[in-house]
Amino acid sequence: MTPDTPAPRRRGRPSRTAETTGPDARTRILEAARTEFAERGYDKTSVRGIAKAAGVDAALVHHYFGTKDEVFAAAIEVSFEPALVIPAVLGGPPDELGERLARYFISVWENPVTRAPLLAVIRSALTHEAAAKVLRGFVLRRLLERIAAELDVPDPTFRAELAASHMIGIAILRYVIQAEPLASADPEKIIEMVAPTLQRYLTGR
Amino acid sequence: MTPDTPAPRRRGRPSRTAETTGPDARTRILEAARTEFAERGYDKTSVRGIAKAAGVDAALVHHYFGTKDEVFAAAIEVSFEPALVIPAVLGGPPDELGERLARYFISVWENPVTRAPLLAVIRSALTHEAAAKVLRGFVLRRLLERIAAELDVPDPTFRAELAASHMIGIAILRYVIQAEPLASADPEKIIEMVAPTLQRYLTGR
Repeated sequence: MTPDTPAPRRRGRPSRTAETTGPDARTRILEAARTEFAERGYDKTSVRGIAKAAGVDAALVHHYFGTKDEVFAAAIEVSFEPALVIPAVLGGPPDELGERLARYFISVWENPVTRAPLLAVIRSALTHEAAAKVLRGFVLRRLLERIAAELDVPDPTFRAELAASHMIGIAILRYVIQAEPLASADPEKIIEMVAPTLQRYLTGR
Repeated sequence: MTPDTPAPRRRGRPSRTAETTGPDARTRILEAARTEFAERGYDKTSVRGIAKAAGVDAALVHHYFGTKDEVFAAAIEVSFEPALVIPAVLGGPPDELGERLARYFISVWENPVTRAPLLAVIRSALTHEAAAKVLRGFVLRRLLERIAAELDVPDPTFRAELAASHMIGIAILRYVIQAEPLASADPEKIIEMVAPTLQRYLTGR
């Protein structure tokens, strides 16, 4: 589909100006998608609703991203961008890999801007199979397997998943369930406790 | 409210026989509640719907359990019953505590009967604040703090929460997201890798 493909319904379609196309429109669509998925959940979010929130035509959303699943994948990509994550985690001394991974992960969750799409992912993936599939394909294949490829251990993907599972669980207890004292704990205290676990999974024996 | 309190609407109300009261009715209500919460999620589950599925009057559900939150707490209690969990986890040599905790946790998840309410809890708690509050109050205060009370380490509740977070994350990646190879991994392989982590959190330094 191209931007010239007519939208199914043209009612209220904005005229195509610099405001509704180009890189700014793409960014606005992604921001709107993150907000919609985070606030409404996967089921209740529609391409039409995202387009409306971004002030663009639904056809433009389809043009840039394709289906709702593909908008979802693009919206959460910012939090798992391999070009950002891989150097931040894999660069540096191998014996500090666990600490770098814990620190990167906590920093992404402590920042409200990057936290919102993560919450959307986790909530959506647990209640909607399509979102779970996106998470499996996207995060696991693109991110975990690239980290696993750098590891010199048996079963590297299994080990990377164990590390990821721990960080997902911490995010849920700390940021979603908000269980105390974990929810109010100093991030450095969490990193100090968790880093040796991740280090053992990723490089141990 | 007692069983003699009239239901708001008596249409279709079954006559009170041995079938609709007593311990069997209580068990049927809990089973129906687990199924309803697991299949419909927290929001869409109602006391009326649970009563219908159990073949009893809604007033009887209120009588035994109270509000929807209280039915939820009772329904998930079977998976976190301190009288079952505490001896299984805390009984035995202290240096095998991590392995016992990992083994108990995996066994509860591997059993479809006890897995269903856990899935209901996790899905509901992540999308509904009332369910999150039940999980905080119930699981954390009744279970984690009792385990923490037995630990001879600084910040025992924080450490018990780190252990719990890892197990929650494994459950999500293995049973909900079904990420491979973790989803198909031999339970013993997971226990072997995770037990030293839990042991360090619960008894280390």
